[in-house]
Amino acid sequence: MIGGEALLATLVSSDVEVCFANPGTSEMHLVAALDRVRGMRAVLTLFEGVATGAADGYARVAGRPAATLLHLGPGLGNGLANLHNARRARSAVVNIVGDHATDHKRLDPPLESDLIGMAETVSGWVRVSEKAGALASDAAEAVAAAWGPPGGVATLVVRADASWSESGGGPAPPLPRRAPAPVGTDVVEAVSAALRTGQPAALLVGGPALRRPGLVAGGRVAVATGARYLCESFPAALERGAGLPAPERVSYLAEFVEAQLAGVRHLILAGTGPPVSFFAYPDRPGDLVPAGCEVHRLAAPGDDVTGALEALAEAVGAEPGQDGSVPFARPARPTGDLTLQTLAEAVGAVLPEGAVVVDESNTAGLFVPAATAGAPRHDWLTLTGGAIGFGLPAATGAAVAAKGRPVLCLEADGSAMYTAQALWTQAREGLDVTTVVLANHAYDILNLELARVGADGEGPMAAAMLDLSRPDLDFVALAAGMGVPATRVTTADELSRQLERSFATEGPSLIEAEVPPLSGPRS
Amino acid sequence: MIGGEALLATLVSSDVEVCFANPGTSEMHLVAALDRVRGMRAVLTLFEGVATGAADGYARVAGRPAATLLHLGPGLGNGLANLHNARRARSAVVNIVGDHATDHKRLDPPLESDLIGMAETVSGWVRVSEKAGALASDAAEAVAAAWGPPGGVATLVVRADASWSESGGGPAPPLPRRAPAPVGTDVVEAVSAALRTGQPAALLVGGPALRRPGLVAGGRVAVATGARYLCESFPAALERGAGLPAPERVSYLAEFVEAQLAGVRHLILAGTGPPVSFFAYPDRPGDLVPAGCEVHRLAAPGDDVTGALEALAEAVGAEPGQDGSVPFARPARPTGDLTLQTLAEAVGAVLPEGAVVVDESNTAGLFVPAATAGAPRHDWLTLTGGAIGFGLPAATGAAVAAKGRPVLCLEADGSAMYTAQALWTQAREGLDVTTVVLANHAYDILNLELARVGADGEGPMAAAMLDLSRPDLDFVALAAGMGVPATRVTTADELSRQLERSFATEGPSLIEAEVPPLSGPRS
Repeated sequence: MIGGEALLATLVSSDVEVCFANPGTSEMHLVAALDRVRGMRAVLTLFEGVATGAADGYARVAGRPAATLLHLGPGLGNGLANLHNARRARSAVVNIVGDHATDHKRLDPPLESDLIGMAETVSGWVRVSEKAGALASDAAEAVAAAWGPPGGVATLVVRADASWSESGGGPAPPLPRRAPAPVGTDVVEAVSAALRTGQPAALLVGGPALRRPGLVAGGRVAVATGARYLCESFPAALERGAGLPAPERVSYLAEFVEAQLAGVRHLILAGTGPPVSFFAYPDRPGDLVPAGCEVHRLAAPGDDVTGALEALAEAVGAEPGQDGSVPFARPARPTGDLTLQTLAEAVGAVLPEGAVVVDESNTAGLFVPAATAGAPRHDWLTLTGGAIGFGLPAATGAAVAAKGRPVLCLEADGSAMYTAQALWTQAREGLDVTTVVLANHAYDILNLELARVGADGEGPMAAAMLDLSRPDLDFVALAAGMGVPATRVTTADELSRQLERSFATEGPSLIEAEVPPLSGPRS
Repeated sequence: MIGGEALLATLVSSDVEVCFANPGTSEMHLVAALDRVRGMRAVLTLFEGVATGAADGYARVAGRPAATLLHLGPGLGNGLANLHNARRARSAVVNIVGDHATDHKRLDPPLESDLIGMAETVSGWVRVSEKAGALASDAAEAVAAAWGPPGGVATLVVRADASWSESGGGPAPPLPRRAPAPVGTDVVEAVSAALRTGQPAALLVGGPALRRPGLVAGGRVAVATGARYLCESFPAALERGAGLPAPERVSYLAEFVEAQLAGVRHLILAGTGPPVSFFAYPDRPGDLVPAGCEVHRLAAPGDDVTGALEALAEAVGAEPGQDGSVPFARPARPTGDLTLQTLAEAVGAVLPEGAVVVDESNTAGLFVPAATAGAPRHDWLTLTGGAIGFGLPAATGAAVAAKGRPVLCLEADGSAMYTAQALWTQAREGLDVTTVVLANHAYDILNLELARVGADGEGPMAAAMLDLSRPDLDFVALAAGMGVPATRVTTADELSRQLERSFATEGPSLIEAEVPPLSGPRS
């Protein structure tokens, strides 16, 4: 078989069965191979940022990597922002980028660029496959590198001539998966000792600790020791809802984090790093660990974080079943105007069991986490790297992974415009995604940040840079343009009804929800 | 004044008066400065690829740089593809990227990334401004670096604390502009001697030679010596139409280039490099210079290319006025179905004097250049770097630069979906852009390339990767969603009428033209 076929067959034998693709000429042999190698589902996207964001969303839900297929340096460039988010989420992504044939590169044709330099900015592993005979083993290594743990972006650059030449072999066998590194009993004992001092403590969990077993173990520790139970600000995939312990997310706002950590003398980290401010502000610290607080690293993201938490629970003498799980509770179905509060209540009132919520709602979704805390069990995926344009692509990939589970994408209007092309892929693939566009007609977070950084932005030119009106975006028309049925809602009751209708209907739909900006109406 | 104000004031005093912006928190002091520093027009875009493509289009029409304003690594990532095109066009772009405050970076906050590594892949010049006191002089140097000649992307990375801190000074004075390097008389004489051998020769012009003076000088050389007169495949900004010499563009298809250069013994390069194949194909050469042909480099892109051509015209004894200008000629107004030929004729029949044509029509626009060759004088901007998603943003920037001149954007449907957000900016700014989306519902170029690279792509999965139907995109709805009035046409007469109506109407409009694929109807 040719190199391209050997690559594809190796991916499939390594359990990579979905490829989010936006190919070009240099990838045509890989495309043609799709019909000759069985077992790979190729999902076409109309922009590379959709492909990379979908691969991230897929990995977060499936717990295993998808592949991308991108076209040369510019294609990779278009995918970088969502690869940045994937890197921050530690999502396993097999990022396949086609390149010119090796002999062709020295001619500096128009699409030639520093592809490797670009790839290195987001990848934990980069390899250039120059020979057809190496493609299969390179692909197996790429999958292993993406898996980790911790997971990451593994970029395999495939020269066109490697893809089209005879490989002289078949697919490579999958490489064994590395287990997470065990955490030593000495580390567990030291943390346990700190918790037994009786001094105020906080347990901050993230990464692999955010699935049920880790959450339960952490909850037991918190209940037994009285430590505050916190979760990283932007979890990759947080399991939550009725019957699960619910660590409090570290706030986006540094001012609030100060309150969350006030008086804490021991901060225990499990699967995440110490809290830092998202942005820098004049005359404010960026490191949010309080003065006099000792930081204890129980487990790094690539470690056996859940095992370490379970060992810690035993070490502190935690009772089984005493984990602080939240009871079932839904808000009453709201009525009246659509406000940020009634919007949150509508979601909380109707969120179905087993839903995957992709949250890029930014300011407009501020109250949704609280309103869904006691809803039936669901997963919550957030914007881990701050690169907006994550939500619609990630929801697309999540829906490919989560067959039979409804996907709810809470998407701010400003962010939606970065990668709205994802809607077309949802329509083509018939994916069960309900997108709620929270339309406040502003980059509202910047209205807050303008004041927080101490910039005087009262003038009309600055205001125009934060304003998405003149003209208003019409997401009902945009969705229709990409084959996704859509409606606009202006009341809480309409939102609840449209959500229920969408959850009960197969295929994608979009609801444009008119909401006021958190920053208040503009003058 | 603070650093951000000094930066902005320096740009304005260096004749950079437009900024295509998509800012975030780390750029808020620059945004606030827009109201305190007079003379900068800030144009908001909803995606960074629109900002960078607009800066490219602006530079090609205005002949001077605009600035961008991008947000950290992911914002730059989103802008890379169109910066790649700008780099290939040698467009002067002052690419301003906000970064975290210096002290904040060591905390590795979520949006931290290898911004410099990313910038170096597209920039001829990169500088990190760490101190408020250096921002003004750094900005003046960035403008000078962008200017060249040749022009290029100059990336200035502005740390947030440099922007918000007191600069201790005011704006920096503009730096003197470097003149293009003169070409020695020995070089001109050597080329002249080659042309006087009487052996078959071709003059291949590009870059700065594509404005009227260079075209006329080259045309005189061609007429006097009998050399074939060729122009690079993808010109940044080609002046053309009735009364101008019209060098033949080197074909995209290597097979055709072989014919264009068949028998040529001397290839004279003026402002461009030797022709290479766009992609590599199995068993075909990528270097398209025929065997036995001697390449003579008259002038590189940063040289005084026009001066060199004028000196060459004198050296070969060319007559003034004998430059092979094309006469005025328009096709008859077409009737009947919309085909690729009648589409081209409709454009040729109604193209207004002084138009700026932004051409990302790919396969669907194949016949438009021939049909407009004798139209009233106009400029033709093409996809220099092959990174699709250039057209709508470049047309946006071109319209900002070309006040009073109509802009016609010929845009393929597949390419349009990469950066369609540009339509919103056109609506907000009331820009006179007529966009014709050539809707063949396919990545049609790939249908051709699949066969050309020798891939067997007859299967349904490969076909699905090249197909934009299921569902069809509705560009009338998409445009409406972004505030741009739009219509759909299916006949040649409707297209002519809608073009005339749009050229006669202020503000943007979009025409979705249903055209058959060049590759023939799908089975």
